Amino acid sequence: MKVVTSDKVIYTFRPDMEPVQKILPDEIVEVETNDCFLNQIENEEQLIDEIDFSKINPATGPIYVEGAEPGDVLKIEILKINLPDKGIMIVAPNEGVLGSFVERAQTRVVKIENKVCHFKSISIPAKPMIGVIGVAPSQKDGEYPTGIPWKHGGNMDTTDITEGAALYLPVNQKGALLALGDCHAVMGDGEVCVTGCEIRSKVRLKTTLIKGVPLEWPIVETNNSLAVVTSGNTVEGAIEEATRCAVNHLSKGLNLDWSDAYMLASLVVNIKVSQVVDPKKTVRASISKEILNPKRIF
Amino acid sequence: MKVVTSDKVIYTFRPDMEPVQKILPDEIVEVETNDCFLNQIENEEQLIDEIDFSKINPATGPIYVEGAEPGDVLKIEILKINLPDKGIMIVAPNEGVLGSFVERAQTRVVKIENKVCHFKSISIPAKPMIGVIGVAPSQKDGEYPTGIPWKHGGNMDTTDITEGAALYLPVNQKGALLALGDCHAVMGDGEVCVTGCEIRSKVRLKTTLIKGVPLEWPIVETNNSLAVVTSGNTVEGAIEEATRCAVNHLSKGLNLDWSDAYMLASLVVNIKVSQVVDPKKTVRASISKEILNPKRIF
Repeated sequence: MKVVTSDKVIYTFRPDMEPVQKILPDEIVEVETNDCFLNQIENEEQLIDEIDFSKINPATGPIYVEGAEPGDVLKIEILKINLPDKGIMIVAPNEGVLGSFVERAQTRVVKIENKVCHFKSISIPAKPMIGVIGVAPSQKDGEYPTGIPWKHGGNMDTTDITEGAALYLPVNQKGALLALGDCHAVMGDGEVCVTGCEIRSKVRLKTTLIKGVPLEWPIVETNNSLAVVTSGNTVEGAIEEATRCAVNHLSKGLNLDWSDAYMLASLVVNIKVSQVVDPKKTVRASISKEILNPKRIF
Repeated sequence: MKVVTSDKVIYTFRPDMEPVQKILPDEIVEVETNDCFLNQIENEEQLIDEIDFSKINPATGPIYVEGAEPGDVLKIEILKINLPDKGIMIVAPNEGVLGSFVERAQTRVVKIENKVCHFKSISIPAKPMIGVIGVAPSQKDGEYPTGIPWKHGGNMDTTDITEGAALYLPVNQKGALLALGDCHAVMGDGEVCVTGCEIRSKVRLKTTLIKGVPLEWPIVETNNSLAVVTSGNTVEGAIEEATRCAVNHLSKGLNLDWSDAYMLASLVVNIKVSQVVDPKKTVRASISKEILNPKRIF
């Protein structure tokens, strides 16, 4: 199995990136990821001022998938997200939903044992997820720092992007140029304090190509649901975009006229919050696979 | 069992309302509710222009709960929400998340049979819920049309307010003065097109008083979770308020300092969307009861 090591990182998703590894479609690959601070925080005594904030949200890659062409969809099955023995959290003034109430920066080390995260005396079942995952953007969209989510993926911080899920990304450039990082052992929808339980990880993936299917925004498929993942400058803006896409998918997939698809969406689409703390906010419009099967989209 | 009939309705939650029924705490009561259009829409041929829009969101009540005093909490257990044989949906220009794309108003009648809603050929399991439920606001908050959600409850359109759930509302006035209506047979989180599957119903409730516990915003308890339900002029504003309350509940309930509660919230609080289509938007901050048991709040 090919391994992409954690020293091969990018901080910007660019339309033209140099790949560090080539894989075939259907090939399983292991990607070693750093935590969102490039592992700079080791203990609770460390001062956050000492961190190099130019090294935030490293994404390991890019990986070139043979045969991927603009206009295809890259399906990424997440087979395994390895849990280390600890994760890192911070609060800092002006960060997160309640940043204006934070007086001084603080760090917490969260012990992880037998798939349980221990935050002080509180035990939380781990649900590992990938925070940053994306491909090279289109020329039109231009470049995006890894900390920002958009149509190419990026810092979507979406709890559904977890073990056993599949992520569908639009291919904008030859080879797709996949990169990922910023895994969390657990995170609540919203990521309200600005970090999840930030971990280094090894992620095992299988990529598949779906040829010639246009896709505007990423879709994540879990056991039960399909969700369009959209971002915007405001939560409202992201919700409008997610609703628009969901209604289009329902209309095409179920052969309904637009007004009927809009009404149906009001019954079967759940608007969920992904993160509200990054420079762009991310939501998802989630639909049960019993209503809309992925085969009706791809 | 006392029954409050559907001809006893209010369109505004006022600090001073005349009760139409008195009940004892722990007494079970049945409340007959109208749909959000006061049952004015009977079929798909009816023109929406013919509807009297001054009669929207009627709430049946108010019900005076003996012994309820300002500073108490009214716990409302939702024992049963009756499903009729049909529900109504509409789309209209400038209504809902995608209202700017709607060219003309349309109505759909959704058949309901054996706890399944039939929207055209699509079958959706019913999950009945109460859209509008509230008590008399405080003098300070003043009066609220039934279509607007706020600290007293009102048009929260929250899918968790369903059969088997318990809603906790702050008591602001003697007797609490409970009223409810606007039930939905099913609705997606967000209520994106502006209606759920709107039904008339009979709701069976049991109210209990929790004496002398201050509560700022409503809390809804389901089998697995507790959620603070907050509203604001923007989704962002509602999320900030929900996060603030959730962090305070975690801090007090688990005896954590504020910064630790804020970090913990980022792991265990799920920000969920209730509705984004009313004059004020509603979200909820949901926490597993395994992390925060209601006994730690009430």
